[in-house]
Amino acid sequence: MRILTGLQPSGKLHIGNYFGAMEPAVHLQDQGEAFYFIADYHAMTTTGDAATLRGNIQDLAIDFLACGLDPEKATIFRQSDIPEVNELAWVLSTVCPMGLLERCHSYKDKVAKGFAANHALFAYPALMAADILLYDADLVPVGKDQKQHLEVTRDLAGKINDRYGEGTLVIPEAQIKEHTAVVPGLDGQKMSKSYNNTIPLTGGKKAIRKSIMRVVTDSTAVEDPKPTDGSTVIALYKLFADDEQMAQMIADHEAGGFGYGDFKQRVFDAYWEYFAEVRSKREELENNLDYVNGVIAQGAEKARQEASKVLDRVRHAVGLR
Amino acid sequence: MRILTGLQPSGKLHIGNYFGAMEPAVHLQDQGEAFYFIADYHAMTTTGDAATLRGNIQDLAIDFLACGLDPEKATIFRQSDIPEVNELAWVLSTVCPMGLLERCHSYKDKVAKGFAANHALFAYPALMAADILLYDADLVPVGKDQKQHLEVTRDLAGKINDRYGEGTLVIPEAQIKEHTAVVPGLDGQKMSKSYNNTIPLTGGKKAIRKSIMRVVTDSTAVEDPKPTDGSTVIALYKLFADDEQMAQMIADHEAGGFGYGDFKQRVFDAYWEYFAEVRSKREELENNLDYVNGVIAQGAEKARQEASKVLDRVRHAVGLR
Repeated sequence: MRILTGLQPSGKLHIGNYFGAMEPAVHLQDQGEAFYFIADYHAMTTTGDAATLRGNIQDLAIDFLACGLDPEKATIFRQSDIPEVNELAWVLSTVCPMGLLERCHSYKDKVAKGFAANHALFAYPALMAADILLYDADLVPVGKDQKQHLEVTRDLAGKINDRYGEGTLVIPEAQIKEHTAVVPGLDGQKMSKSYNNTIPLTGGKKAIRKSIMRVVTDSTAVEDPKPTDGSTVIALYKLFADDEQMAQMIADHEAGGFGYGDFKQRVFDAYWEYFAEVRSKREELENNLDYVNGVIAQGAEKARQEASKVLDRVRHAVGLR
Repeated sequence: MRILTGLQPSGKLHIGNYFGAMEPAVHLQDQGEAFYFIADYHAMTTTGDAATLRGNIQDLAIDFLACGLDPEKATIFRQSDIPEVNELAWVLSTVCPMGLLERCHSYKDKVAKGFAANHALFAYPALMAADILLYDADLVPVGKDQKQHLEVTRDLAGKINDRYGEGTLVIPEAQIKEHTAVVPGLDGQKMSKSYNNTIPLTGGKKAIRKSIMRVVTDSTAVEDPKPTDGSTVIALYKLFADDEQMAQMIADHEAGGFGYGDFKQRVFDAYWEYFAEVRSKREELENNLDYVNGVIAQGAEKARQEASKVLDRVRHAVGLR
């Protein structure tokens, strides 16, 4: 079973990325032949600065390894190291009705959020389909927001197979990430860079403590019992705390007599401990970029082998060979 | 000066293609460093059958050489032999406002003509821009119908240079083909496959004579003088006849006493003689496909060298390297 996941290099990871993408990816690398890639072409839909893009790519490569992706188990590579993906995207475009792309929410959402309505943003799902189909992926773990794009992928693969013969492309299954923790942002909304409500995965102690202290709470007085349902503090603490710590936190909420500052401090402490290993690995890797880039180069080689097989099959099927 | 022209492999060439594209291309190969390519990716926007595409690609390679494109002078290659063009198309898409593509006539026209509204048809101008910019082309001879696409190309190159630095891409000039003969179809409209009014460039004598005999004329009686202005017979004859023949044809129109059948026979005779060399070269090449495909392979090598230089420059500029 081949599993594929891509992540955009769009700046420092936050803990929403960690629990939403990295942790499941680390888990999945033991369950099949995993392909993980840095989606740098996709990042270009929203990042128009070369130095920023370059830095983000390097950062994400480090993060991949710091979070526990293992080059012995998984193929870790960079999307643009296999430029052939753009050729497959073109082939898919020839069977892709405009309506299919026009109906995609993500384009409309991004434009609504103020991103320039450029063609790459619009064509994104066709390139994402190529990302998946180029590696004969069987399984693609997706969040709810990517479910529609996976439907597009399956649809396009089906159209290619209908037109050019069954087996030209492997039709992947979505694995809807159900067990993934919901990570609230500082304001209680979904954690997302575009809401400016994130807690970084790694960074300086002081700055991160400061940002956790910004978690929005109600204004219950110190001495009174505090609500636990719908509490962002509780939801964040749950990500890092063990059962005992969690029980204590709830008891202290219910008892009253503790202020939110105290609770937030506990969130920070638990956070800080939880990511101690990721942090130290990251530091080590930052001082060993040759190793990091070597892993990515090796991944590219393996990914290219797989991609060449699939693309060769496609080129013959469609008449380009 | 680098000149670039692409032609879609979309079936047997007709004499409209010859006078509109091939003859100017043959002429231009003496005036600069010419790059001529078989636009097979583009053909996929409208040809969904592998065997047809394969056949059309082979046919066009033969036609290129039969019409006089000279591998000693020009780089003759196949678009899909340089798949990197799709990567550049992606990069261009990231600076391409959707409105720019939405305003392109050719997409709207093709959809109006009944072609499926697929994404490749819509994205066509972005790939065409990449075709041109990947080779640092200075000059692109275009017909009126492609003028808008060249404006898109210049626009995108300018946006890349604005964002990533001057000199990232060479901004090409259009050479509007003014001296190109207007080739009317059998019905007097512009000769075009989609109007089903074409005269093939090569083919059997009987079939072509029959099609020329279908040229639409008025119903002036044999004995009466015949109009020369707006006459399709005259316009076609002009393509093949020398001055003396032409003067005779006009005189005979004005004198009366000659029927249209007679005039059409003269058109056919002149056509047949005019293309005698193309026809015999074509026959020879059909029996020497190894040579033809060798020329294309050699062209690919040369084209790839140029493309790599440009793409390398672009990748560094945008931050992918």
